[in-house]
Parts: sequence; structure tokens; C-alpha cells
Amino acid sequence: MRDIVVIGHKANTSGDFTLNDLPGSAGRMDILCRCVSSALFLSFGMRRDVNVHLLLLGEPDPGKILRFEGLHLRYLNPDERSSGSLIQKALQKSATEQDIRSTPGVWIRRGNLDSLLSGFEGRTLLYLREDGEDIRAIANEIRDPVFILGDHVGVTEEEEAQLLKAGAKIISVGPLSLHSNHCITLIHNELDRAEAERGELPGEADSRIED
Amino acid sequence: MRDIVVIGHKANTSGDFTLNDLPGSAGRMDILCRCVSSALFLSFGMRRDVNVHLLLLGEPDPGKILRFEGLHLRYLNPDERSSGSLIQKALQKSATEQDIRSTPGVWIRRGNLDSLLSGFEGRTLLYLREDGEDIRAIANEIRDPVFILGDHVGVTEEEEAQLLKAGAKIISVGPLSLHSNHCITLIHNELDRAEAERGELPGEADSRIED
Ligand SMILES: C[S@@+](CC[C@H](N)C(=O)[O-])C[C@H]1O[C@@H](n2cnc3c(N)ncnc32)[C@H](O)[C@@H]1O
Ligand SMILES: C[S@@+](CC[C@H](N)C(=O)[O-])C[C@H]1O[C@@H](n2cnc3c(N)ncnc32)[C@H](O)[C@@H]1O
Repeated sequence: MRDIVVIGHKANTSGDFTLNDLPGSAGRMDILCRCVSSALFLSFGMRRDVNVHLLLLGEPDPGKILRFEGLHLRYLNPDERSSGSLIQKALQKSATEQDIRSTPGVWIRRGNLDSLLSGFEGRTLLYLREDGEDIRAIANEIRDPVFILGDHVGVTEEEEAQLLKAGAKIISVGPLSLHSNHCITLIHNELDRAEAERGELPGEADSRIED
Repeated sequence: MRDIVVIGHKANTSGDFTLNDLPGSAGRMDILCRCVSSALFLSFGMRRDVNVHLLLLGEPDPGKILRFEGLHLRYLNPDERSSGSLIQKALQKSATEQDIRSTPGVWIRRGNLDSLLSGFEGRTLLYLREDGEDIRAIANEIRDPVFILGDHVGVTEEEEAQLLKAGAKIISVGPLSLHSNHCITLIHNELDRAEAERGELPGEADSRIED
């Protein structure tokens, strides 16, 4: 399983925005939409072994966590508007601390970085930062990872402290600072290659669709 | 310089579409929009050493070539709608065989794959196909490349024959079939890493902005 967390510091938390302006009225929701797409899409079908967690911290109701489960996901197309629309639908539910299902494979709850991280006990936490250890040097040893990325403003000092306290290792995907969705594509490629080298099916490419 | 060609077999060629439906009414223009964004954006600013060439082959006026020049580009944001809007503006010009400038850094002309390839004489043509040679094995030797990618239907047999006749080498970016924009991100990363290893500034990260 590959889990991917993206922190959206300005991302709208009520669903009250227009799909025609995901960067503006929705608080750079376009970034999160591209992350969902890069995390989940293969050329033909979906990465069923991937979950995406969006931590939305913008106004008017900060602290919502959306989860996209590759295994159960439906109604998602690769364009930004499509993920934007599933995000909007989920935000229109009245969220509690307990998961509520919005559409197949999309869940929403209230929470913060700490509550999100507490659900990953026993997993390998990998926090992406430009000056981290090169993922290419360790890709072969990575098992059952949870990757954590920032948005256009990165990760705050406080969040970073929480990540390090939870045991996260800092890794880099290359020599330039890139957009979060590009980093996700690079992570997948490193793991796909490592799995293929080990003779496994990369990205569980044959993966079942359950519903 | 890195040049990237994407062939859009169904992509609208009149500009007569709505930005609210890039996948449908615009003939999977969303694919090309994501390619433009993945080819040109860094975290802070643009890759000034990159040109993107979109070959649009859909109705109603097939055979238009749009060129995005990283060095001169303005008014582009990373979201799909932003590149979609620059594409639409360019398509609304009456195109001839000669380049016409639409917005800063965006050019349009009539043409086909042959006329496009003839402009790349002396360059290294690299055609992306799932079963090609691993780019990672040769990234260090790549200089002044032109990468050619298909869209959701790939590359036709006839186009492939033209590419091979022009001397293109077939390369792969990994063990799974991916979306075209994901492939572009992976190409850049291989070249960025190779340049950094050689002690060059990867992606000409310091690059000047001319206008
Ligand atoms: C647009 S970048 C953030 C830019 C910048 N770090 C800042 O603080 O404003 C978005 C996220 O992508 C990840 N990232 C970008 N480039 C990276 C690289 N080369 N290696 C690892 N992670 C990277 C980081 O997690 C970062 O928070
Ligand atoms: C969505 S894929 C095309 C799917 C499939 N090849 C077809 O013919 O329908 C879009 C393009 O990305 C490129 N591509 C996808 N995966 C690739 C890989 N692993 N290596 C090299 N190129 C790849 C190819 O240029 C392909 O035409």
C-alpha cells in the first residue's frame, strides 16, 4: 500500500466555491486536484494500491481530511475539474470526527495533522523536502510507505516538528524544487521500478476493482 | 534546450469549445493542458529552457501546431484552465504556414508531423514508448533532445513510421504505461539529475526571463 498525504493550507473547507476557479475561490484547490490525479492514475485505469489523504486547512471550517481510496474509487477522471467536483461533494457533507462516505472511495472527516498521523502507526513515514536524502538511494528498501508533501507554501515549522516527532524520514526526489503533483509522479516511478526489479507487479498493475 | 512534442489526435482546432469541458467539447484538450504545465513549471517559476509543441489533429480544421516557449512565456498558471485558455486564444487566430504570435511565448501555425519534425534537424529525437530503452541508462548522454509523446490513443503506426524515418530512438520512462504529462515529469527529472551530476545548473534553474 502507498499512502500519500498532501497538506492544503489555504484549501476551502465548505465546498462553497466554483469549479471554474479552483486556484482562486477554492484556495489553490487546483494543487490538490492535480495531486489526486497524479497519485491515482495509470494510463489504463487506476492505482488500486494507493490512498490519498488531503488535509484541508483553509477557511471557513479548517481541519477536514478527505481520503481517496484507489481500491474503491469511482467517478474520477484525470482532469482537475473531476477531482475538484468529488472534493466539493465531500465537503458538502456535514463532517464529524468519524469517517463519512461521500461518493464511492471518497471519505471525509474532521481532523488535523496529529490525528491523521496517529492512523499510520507502524508505517514508514517519508516527508518530502528538497534537501532530504535522495529517494533513489533508498527506493529498494521502502515498504508500506506514507509520503507527506506540502502545497505551494510548503510545510510549516510546526508541521515539520510533528512529522519528525512521529518518526518521519526526510527524502528528496531530485535537485530542483517541483510542484507537489510532480513529486508524486516521481515517487511512484521510483517504487514502480524497485518493485519491477524485485520481480513484483509494479503498482499492483493487475489490481482488482472492488466495490 | 529541451523540446517536447505531444500529438493530440482529437484536439479541437478552432478554439470553439468551453473551458468548462476541456475533456469533452475540446477533444481531450485536458491531456495537452497537463502536458504544457508539466513541461514548463518549476516550483518557483518556469523552465526557461523548454519549448512545448502541440500538434492538434482534431476537427474542424486539423493540422495546427502550437508552440509554447518557456523563455518568453507569460500569463501561464499551472492549472489546466490556464493553459486551456492560452490554447483557445491561439486557435482563434487565423493560422497560416508561418508562425503567428498569439500571446507572449505562444505561437501558432498550420502544419503536420512531417513539417514539425523537419524543424528539428540535427537534434536528438527521442520517441517515448512503453517498451523502449530505459531513459535512465542513457540520460547522461542526452544532449539537445526533442521528446515525442502520444495522447490517450498513443501514436499511430503511420506517425511511428515517420518518427523512425526521421531517426528517432525509442525510449521508456518506466515499467508501467502512464499519462503523457507524467512521462514529461519523469523525463525532466532524469535530465535534471544528469545535469546536476555533471555540475551544471539543472533545468537552467537560474534562467533569464526575456521579453
Ligand atoms: C511547491 S513545493 C513547496 C515549495 C517550497 N518548499 C516552500 O516551502 O514554499 C511543494 C512540496 O513539494 C515537495 N517538494 C518539491 N520539490 C521537492 C524535491 N525536489 N524533493 C522532495 N520534495 C519536494 C515538498 O513537500 C514541498 O512542500
Ligand atoms: C496514455 S499513454 C498511451 C497509451 C497507449 N500507449 C496507447 O497506445 O493507447 C500516452 C503516451 O505516453 C507515453 N508513455 C506512456 N507510458 C510510457 C512509458 N512507460 N515509457 C515511455 N513512454 C510512455 C507514450 O508516448 C504514449 O503514447
